[in-house]
Amino acid sequence: MTGTMRQIQLVSYPEDKPGPENFRMVEHAPPEPGDGEILVEVLVLSMDPFPRLRMRADSTAGPPLPLGRVMDGRGIGRVIKSRHPGIRTGDHVYGDLGWQTHAVLAAAQAKPVDLSWATAEQQLGILGPSGLTAFFALHEEGRPKPGETVVIAPAAGSVGTIAGQIARLKGCRVVGIAGGGTQCDFLVNELGFDAAVDYQDGPRFAAALAAACPDGVDLFLDGVGGPTHDAVAERINLHGRIVLIGFISGYNDDAPARYGQPLTLLFRRAAMKGFLLADYEDRFDEARRILSGWLRDGRIRPVETVWHGLDQAPAAFAALFAAPRPGKQLVRVSQ
Amino acid sequence: MTGTMRQIQLVSYPEDKPGPENFRMVEHAPPEPGDGEILVEVLVLSMDPFPRLRMRADSTAGPPLPLGRVMDGRGIGRVIKSRHPGIRTGDHVYGDLGWQTHAVLAAAQAKPVDLSWATAEQQLGILGPSGLTAFFALHEEGRPKPGETVVIAPAAGSVGTIAGQIARLKGCRVVGIAGGGTQCDFLVNELGFDAAVDYQDGPRFAAALAAACPDGVDLFLDGVGGPTHDAVAERINLHGRIVLIGFISGYNDDAPARYGQPLTLLFRRAAMKGFLLADYEDRFDEARRILSGWLRDGRIRPVETVWHGLDQAPAAFAALFAAPRPGKQLVRVSQ
Repeated sequence: MTGTMRQIQLVSYPEDKPGPENFRMVEHAPPEPGDGEILVEVLVLSMDPFPRLRMRADSTAGPPLPLGRVMDGRGIGRVIKSRHPGIRTGDHVYGDLGWQTHAVLAAAQAKPVDLSWATAEQQLGILGPSGLTAFFALHEEGRPKPGETVVIAPAAGSVGTIAGQIARLKGCRVVGIAGGGTQCDFLVNELGFDAAVDYQDGPRFAAALAAACPDGVDLFLDGVGGPTHDAVAERINLHGRIVLIGFISGYNDDAPARYGQPLTLLFRRAAMKGFLLADYEDRFDEARRILSGWLRDGRIRPVETVWHGLDQAPAAFAALFAAPRPGKQLVRVSQ
Repeated sequence: MTGTMRQIQLVSYPEDKPGPENFRMVEHAPPEPGDGEILVEVLVLSMDPFPRLRMRADSTAGPPLPLGRVMDGRGIGRVIKSRHPGIRTGDHVYGDLGWQTHAVLAAAQAKPVDLSWATAEQQLGILGPSGLTAFFALHEEGRPKPGETVVIAPAAGSVGTIAGQIARLKGCRVVGIAGGGTQCDFLVNELGFDAAVDYQDGPRFAAALAAACPDGVDLFLDGVGGPTHDAVAERINLHGRIVLIGFISGYNDDAPARYGQPLTLLFRRAAMKGFLLADYEDRFDEARRILSGWLRDGRIRPVETVWHGLDQAPAAFAALFAAPRPGKQLVRVSQ
């Protein structure tokens, strides 16, 4: 190919929330694929919070992300040059493409993607890791039963918007925790949540949560941690379940604050379990079939915020920690 | 009957650990059973830590134990007068008899006991709530697998001595946490634990625990809570399990210190669950058959400390929180 490629590099670690000052855009000639490699034009990037944990010199969540190099990010792209016999020009692939317009990957690192049955956005969101996390963490681990009260936090994000809709499908009372009145209104009016509670509401949060859960909490899908966790866990019912999928309230802290209280679990004979999607890898196809069936039947809907242009990636990433817009945050890099 | 009965009353709530100053012995004429009631001569009392939680005005574990009244305690007794057609003089019964030589119970509150197949001490200990807790919490909830490392705390008490032996039976590496070298030696030399760690060993405790668990911890049966919980939980393996059965380190505190860290569960995809024996009531007979089979075959042995005489009850109760002698603490009131 000719021309230049653009790339967003990580140049410093954030002190608190990540911002544009932590990144820079560079241009250079696109690399040439070597033997067994492919050159991919990046179409859509998925914004995920976990890399934030590695944006520090003393990362304990994997090696620190290197400075002066392309920022980590998964996405879907189109193969524009292949030096591997199993992959052809024009094929679509999923992989760790990075925040850039073009990426060279070893063929083994690229997973074939069929865009004829669902968009790239859907395959990165509701049918990708976010939707799969919602499915396995809420549906398989949480086992929601009709009439139970299910609390989801954060509810307006990529996982929560799907998990809440699945809990509604199962006949549960669904209470979402989100930041700000706009997000809360969206959950109730657009997604059919029974109630939504604004965690930014300071001292009124606990009372609002209690009012939203008059029969206590049977199942809590917790991606937030911290004081939000404690406020919900305090209301857990006898034999209630808590599934831990993240702790986004602590991702920007060097030392996440202590939370949790095992005595609550003891007194209520409740269960709490840590969840990681990778443990369910052999069941991804099964889950995708179920999710795409619900999608096709209109029983759940994808919630996506698509940012247009690679230069929007830092803002889209920052949005994960401020949640100004609901659902899965995606960056459309190229058509 | 003629003569007097003796009774130990609770007269004050302890500030910290319970002691003889919180009780007084009184004598009075034995009560007469009313219609449908029985008069029981108390044979053996079981010492259990849970009543400590109700020995405070602001109890949250049930109503505060009333002052100036007989101290709560379960035990086995012999019926010496019956005004219920289903119970005969000479029958043995189990129930909330209290710390006294004689008790009047409604017949419905008395459970028939057959002393021909196991002693009263065994039926209150290894075949009673302690052994049943060990069986259901460790064996049924914990599901120990051969080769796994199982940590038990407290290990030298009524539940721990049985749970550790069951884990040995299942082919696990068993590590006990106990107070003092004598208790630790007992666990290793008498009960076949693979290692025992002294929680009184101050700064050396963490290193001793690490040395005792070179492959981490797969299953943790926690009746202690507090810093001991944290030290063990920190070493929990991927997909490890923690079963909470108590928090005896905090029973004497007005406000138990915070402990636990959900992030450890999240990162290790581990599970933690609160346990209460009453949830398994419909399976008690099944468990007693299994436990008594192991007992008969000599595969597990009961560990009992029997205190002789009702006046020893306050000291026996205090021993639950200091663990000077291993196993189930029992008070033999009458032969």
